[in-house]
Amino acid sequence: MHFLAPADARSWIEVEPDSHFPIQNLPFGVIDRRGRRVATRLGDTVIDLVELADAGLLALAARDSVDAAALSLRPRLFELFLEDASALRDNAALRARALTPASTARMALPMPVRAFVDFYSGINHASNVGKMFRPDSPPLLPNYRWLPVGYNGRASSVIVSGQRVRRPWGQTKGADDPAPVFAPTRELDFELEMGFFLSGGSTIGEVVPIERAEELMAGFVLVNDWSARDVQRWEYQPLGPFLAKSFATSISPWIVSLDALEPFRVAGMAQDPPALPHLRPGPHGHFDIRLEVSLKTAKMTRRQRISATNFRELYWSPAQQLAHQSSNGTPLEAGDLYASGTISGTEPGTYGSMLELTWRGSQPIRMDETGEERRFLEDGDEVTFTGYCQGDGFRVGFGEVTATVLPAHLG
Amino acid sequence: MHFLAPADARSWIEVEPDSHFPIQNLPFGVIDRRGRRVATRLGDTVIDLVELADAGLLALAARDSVDAAALSLRPRLFELFLEDASALRDNAALRARALTPASTARMALPMPVRAFVDFYSGINHASNVGKMFRPDSPPLLPNYRWLPVGYNGRASSVIVSGQRVRRPWGQTKGADDPAPVFAPTRELDFELEMGFFLSGGSTIGEVVPIERAEELMAGFVLVNDWSARDVQRWEYQPLGPFLAKSFATSISPWIVSLDALEPFRVAGMAQDPPALPHLRPGPHGHFDIRLEVSLKTAKMTRRQRISATNFRELYWSPAQQLAHQSSNGTPLEAGDLYASGTISGTEPGTYGSMLELTWRGSQPIRMDETGEERRFLEDGDEVTFTGYCQGDGFRVGFGEVTATVLPAHLG
Repeated sequence: MHFLAPADARSWIEVEPDSHFPIQNLPFGVIDRRGRRVATRLGDTVIDLVELADAGLLALAARDSVDAAALSLRPRLFELFLEDASALRDNAALRARALTPASTARMALPMPVRAFVDFYSGINHASNVGKMFRPDSPPLLPNYRWLPVGYNGRASSVIVSGQRVRRPWGQTKGADDPAPVFAPTRELDFELEMGFFLSGGSTIGEVVPIERAEELMAGFVLVNDWSARDVQRWEYQPLGPFLAKSFATSISPWIVSLDALEPFRVAGMAQDPPALPHLRPGPHGHFDIRLEVSLKTAKMTRRQRISATNFRELYWSPAQQLAHQSSNGTPLEAGDLYASGTISGTEPGTYGSMLELTWRGSQPIRMDETGEERRFLEDGDEVTFTGYCQGDGFRVGFGEVTATVLPAHLG
Repeated sequence: MHFLAPADARSWIEVEPDSHFPIQNLPFGVIDRRGRRVATRLGDTVIDLVELADAGLLALAARDSVDAAALSLRPRLFELFLEDASALRDNAALRARALTPASTARMALPMPVRAFVDFYSGINHASNVGKMFRPDSPPLLPNYRWLPVGYNGRASSVIVSGQRVRRPWGQTKGADDPAPVFAPTRELDFELEMGFFLSGGSTIGEVVPIERAEELMAGFVLVNDWSARDVQRWEYQPLGPFLAKSFATSISPWIVSLDALEPFRVAGMAQDPPALPHLRPGPHGHFDIRLEVSLKTAKMTRRQRISATNFRELYWSPAQQLAHQSSNGTPLEAGDLYASGTISGTEPGTYGSMLELTWRGSQPIRMDETGEERRFLEDGDEVTFTGYCQGDGFRVGFGEVTATVLPAHLG
């Protein structure tokens, strides 16, 4: 059941032209406000849907986390917030209870994260990493263009934007060191990703065909898959990344539905060789989403943009990723979060990690305001991702995912 | 709060001398019987603890899954089942409601599996796999003796013993094939493992020291980490196993507590080099648990033992595994399941996978009853693991984890 809002629709709630949250968006999230409560956002206003439900304006099944039933309320929210809709607009007492400024709203995770899977579909990132770590081989491994490479991450450390990230300890070993040391990571990095939550699932042995994959998706969020590169280099053979990734993964708080993203569908990059039949996509499985990374050190007063790229730089589409995941019959579950892999463009300045932006630390980033340099992240650094789609006269966006690095615990 | 049952204690419920479930065990599980209900087992009798709670004999908080509160009831169960305890023994009506033969009890997962992590601590298995897949290099990678290598698996496909396992489809590519194919796996395998569930957890950024690691463990189960070797070979670089492992993982239904295993602690193998301080174990972090694998093809009338080994063949102890997992501050959660890695002895006939037992299919196993040969598993094959500790006059065991292979879905 799709609901596409007309491009010229306007709300009675004020929305600036460059806001990520016009009436065409209507994302779902959870605010922490006398307990956890399902909410939506318009412009700089957060709306507590539990208050609207208690007032009889809509029917809300689960009140403390986003689920398929909540997502189905999007057309009803459109009705309630459209400029000539008076039910809430003209009820001052209810407005006072339900509406709150975004600047003071405390956001929680939109739904409990059941499983966290991280794909590797950013082909420029995978190529860059291959060049750095296997300089004598082709940058992409032979399987890369045949299947969406991915691995299982850790769900328990997925946190919401704003929560600070503690620099982790880990084992690292330099190539010439006789033994590893256990110490705080010295190569803390971000990874610019997006991810989709599932609101539906499947039973064990059931295979969800690619044509039905998007039906299970609740929508998208921004994802920062924090990484400790020195830990990763030492631990990852032969079974893949483990503790280098599992200390924290930050996500933006608002789930933006596929219906809201529908006007921004684009054809993905050409796939050569053609995908096998079970991964063969429809023509528009990708989305045109502009992405930016900014950094603010503890000494800086404002953020500096250090990268800009686009979600369409993925080789494999979200539908292909989910069809691949389901192809062996593993049960899909509501709350599963699937991240895209790091999204990098093809040029310096468009890369999605410090590892690439500084080319393994060899080309530090300079902070204009303070003259500081960064090879990897330092304590006190604040990393922010934003992302939005530019429509004709409006934007549909994700807000931001931001977090500040805390110093490691003392040993 | 530890409770160790005396070795000479006996129950009023009949327990054969070779039973895995004497009064010294008292494991926890969940039966599916008018809904899910927490239960324990003595000999061939399953006891519905919800009935005992409803009769006022014990206090049960969660009734449908095992949690820390249920686990703390073990001393109370010991009191109720000790041979001269009359409260339940002499109440025929309650006995009729609460006691049921193990042969007819339908078991469910003992607790919802929050996360599934699979270690690789079976050093003989890791060596064997290294010899097969990297014949020109040392069999163990440089990190193996410095940290418990592991990866995140998929929790949603953990199933309970008895549930059949569907042969999965997957992408495979022979070394000389021009392109991969998507087809049912032709190299279906088992992996003999054990695992521990957590009943406690930690918050993000908190590091659980090795001295406290065992306090968070609910107890152990047998684990069959089903694997598709041909899928694994093609997909696993560079981020580790993914769909080759996530179609099914079977576990035995009874969680055996560390207190029940306490008499069977043993020193682990010598660690050289010595573990780094945060992984430095107490002297008895391992357990002497005899493990057996049997196979019964569709044509056979009885199981044939194809392997026998011991849980002590692990390089890293469970406490070391959990201390490593927690060392970066990732939140630990009740319901986390940590598997040991495949447990193999040093000789043929003691290996924990078909891959090793048949040395990559080159030395098929012969079934004595039918003359059939097996390189990997065929449809209709039933794989069973058992495990127990031999005490002085009693055994503490795990029962079994068994499952039969179903044919793949038609394409």
